[in-house]
Amino acid sequence: MLELRLVQGSLLKKVLEAIKDLVNDANFDCSATGFSLQAMDSSHVALVALLLRSEGFEHYRCDRNISMGMNLNNMAKMLKCAGNDDIITIKADDGSDTVTFMFESPTQDKISDFEMKLMNVDSEHLGIPEAEYHAIVRMPSTEFARICKDLSSIGDTVVISVTKEGVKFSTSGDIGTANVVCRQNTTVDKPEDATIVEMNEPVSLTFALRYFNSFTKGTPLSNTVTISLSSELPVVVEYKIAEMGYIRFYLAPKIEEDDEESKP
Amino acid sequence: MLELRLVQGSLLKKVLEAIKDLVNDANFDCSATGFSLQAMDSSHVALVALLLRSEGFEHYRCDRNISMGMNLNNMAKMLKCAGNDDIITIKADDGSDTVTFMFESPTQDKISDFEMKLMNVDSEHLGIPEAEYHAIVRMPSTEFARICKDLSSIGDTVVISVTKEGVKFSTSGDIGTANVVCRQNTTVDKPEDATIVEMNEPVSLTFALRYFNSFTKGTPLSNTVTISLSSELPVVVEYKIAEMGYIRFYLAPKIEEDDEESKP
Amino acid sequence: MLELRLVQGSLLKKVLEAIKDLVNDANFDCSATGFSLQAMDSSHVALVALLLRSEGFEHYRCDRNISMGMNLNNMAKMLKCAGNDDIITIKADDGSDTVTFMFESPTQDKISDFEMKLMNVDSEHLGIPEAEYHAIVRMPSTEFARICKDLSSIGDTVVISVTKEGVKFSTSGDIGTANVVCRQNTTVDKPEDATIVEMNEPVSLTFALRYFNSFTKGTPLSNTVTISLSSELPVVVEYKIAEMGYIRFYLAPKIEEDDEESKP
Repeated sequence: MLELRLVQGSLLKKVLEAIKDLVNDANFDCSATGFSLQAMDSSHVALVALLLRSEGFEHYRCDRNISMGMNLNNMAKMLKCAGNDDIITIKADDGSDTVTFMFESPTQDKISDFEMKLMNVDSEHLGIPEAEYHAIVRMPSTEFARICKDLSSIGDTVVISVTKEGVKFSTSGDIGTANVVCRQNTTVDKPEDATIVEMNEPVSLTFALRYFNSFTKGTPLSNTVTISLSSELPVVVEYKIAEMGYIRFYLAPKIEEDDEESKP
Repeated sequence: MLELRLVQGSLLKKVLEAIKDLVNDANFDCSATGFSLQAMDSSHVALVALLLRSEGFEHYRCDRNISMGMNLNNMAKMLKCAGNDDIITIKADDGSDTVTFMFESPTQDKISDFEMKLMNVDSEHLGIPEAEYHAIVRMPSTEFARICKDLSSIGDTVVISVTKEGVKFSTSGDIGTANVVCRQNTTVDKPEDATIVEMNEPVSLTFALRYFNSFTKGTPLSNTVTISLSSELPVVVEYKIAEMGYIRFYLAPKIEEDDEESKP
Repeated sequence: MLELRLVQGSLLKKVLEAIKDLVNDANFDCSATGFSLQAMDSSHVALVALLLRSEGFEHYRCDRNISMGMNLNNMAKMLKCAGNDDIITIKADDGSDTVTFMFESPTQDKISDFEMKLMNVDSEHLGIPEAEYHAIVRMPSTEFARICKDLSSIGDTVVISVTKEGVKFSTSGDIGTANVVCRQNTTVDKPEDATIVEMNEPVSLTFALRYFNSFTKGTPLSNTVTISLSSELPVVVEYKIAEMGYIRFYLAPKIEEDDEESKP
């Protein structure tokens, strides 16, 4: 028997909005420690990892580990029917091939339950080792989303370069080139407006912008985003979910053609 | 000669927005008692009845009963040109084949007149007898609209079941099933937030959701909606128009296939 | 060397939004007195003239007169990447085939530079003589935009008639006719709400509405619009740009078919 009661139901709505464009079908894994998901995007290039820790739920009962395959678009359709102030409870009986989402309005005057068929989803759980990164940038999530959107009106790829002074996002396309520099800045009124660069060594990596634009669907989950970069590792774009966990998006850098061409 | 002056012109704009998707052409009937309309939707399944009583107009002159055939889309186009605070006057000369809509801005600095050709519209006026209903539900109109919209993301039909405790809206479709229960609730801060169930006997009826979604275009006209249900009668979905009258939508229940199949 | 620094960068964003639908490619002319543009629309019917005087820039360096051909859609794409509070600097080196737009956020924490290729644009600069107009109407720009939009839901052309009492906009189409009269009105709380008619002789002219709807893209630039009419001249629709200059749209009147037909 599974019963997870989340008072701030809008979090789950936002989580689904953040990942449903990237991933079609996925297994949600439920254990005593939390509710999690790991899935490749449909083109098998990017990876999403979600964790909602059990402590973040008002009530969390998970008698045995289970993995529930769901179509994320259908799940998102159902969660859209929850009000933003609703309490959401996820329920599944042992051995059942369905999952139930229950929405309670704050006044308890309206109670909805939506039942969805589960499905079999092939997946292999990748171990993601903790790694040291050359550079970690923390910045306002809306700023990062704005930059990704702006640059994609000019080009298809973004070069992210980190130096001690800040982080530079660059692109080029048919109509010209663009560089956006965000300076390290910790002296702001609100901590979430800070741009903080932790750097061990300078790094400059190239990524496909369209994946970054998918990742920024996570913006409503957090005021800040953390971008972890290393030349040998996929970038990690992380949105913390207050008191509960995170969504992390992983994407391998592109091998830069310019580098190739400049070789003798 | 016809001259109807409506200070709260936005009401007429909202009336047209409420019915223009359902009905293409219709006769507006004007008599000493009021300005009214009765029309079937274009698929001849639902019926709309509108009444704006003469007392609700600042000035109401209707020398003799007339019936004016109008294309509601064209009429809506013209009314959209009225400002929300404009006074609207409907004018027609005796024997004229046109109707004029005059819009006066609150400051009288801008006066518009829009003249539209009338048309012949076949119609038979149905007598709608006053009836006793098994159950009458009054609830916030936005809540009802939200439920109809939410359920249509899951299924095509809605089962409305009324018991003493409240009203349940149910649907099912390819991706699963949904039930939304609204409890009777009269102890609210604002009377328009109440959900009130008057029930003589329990009733459970099935309707096509797409008509309900058309009916909810009436939501801007009133904070509350009244749904009157009886097993032998079309449902009535009514939006009151403050101080003036109402829009009522009628729709026959579907014969439930489940009932048929469960017969011996 | 060219370097023009505009503290209120949003003005330049609005200028581009105002003209990009009408004109594809155009030469921006830069001289000691200001930054200007004159261009025909792509159907060679309407003319746009823009002037941003050098005094309106915080810093204005233009060593020699130059004319820079730009694709306005691409330029608008780049300017959309500037924040509304950003300072925008336009830069070009002598003999360079590119122009650079630099955007500085108010806090200086984010600096972007967008480089765009210049292009050769054929153009002939028309001398536009100062003229005496039969009538000049000044009215709220949002009101004028609303009227043009409203009338285009009814017809394709607008007849603008000016008398001492005010200005009348008329149209007719398949579904009927429309007249909107705005009365002269100078006794308003805010000067920008006034409708002021300066008239030497009555005038009544016909124009294609779709151009007027393009012109009203200038609405965000100014609270008021000035419409200058003469029977022998193109109409001038002018939006002042505070402290800096203007955008003027010119359009020749249509020869009214009614006039033609009424000839013996």
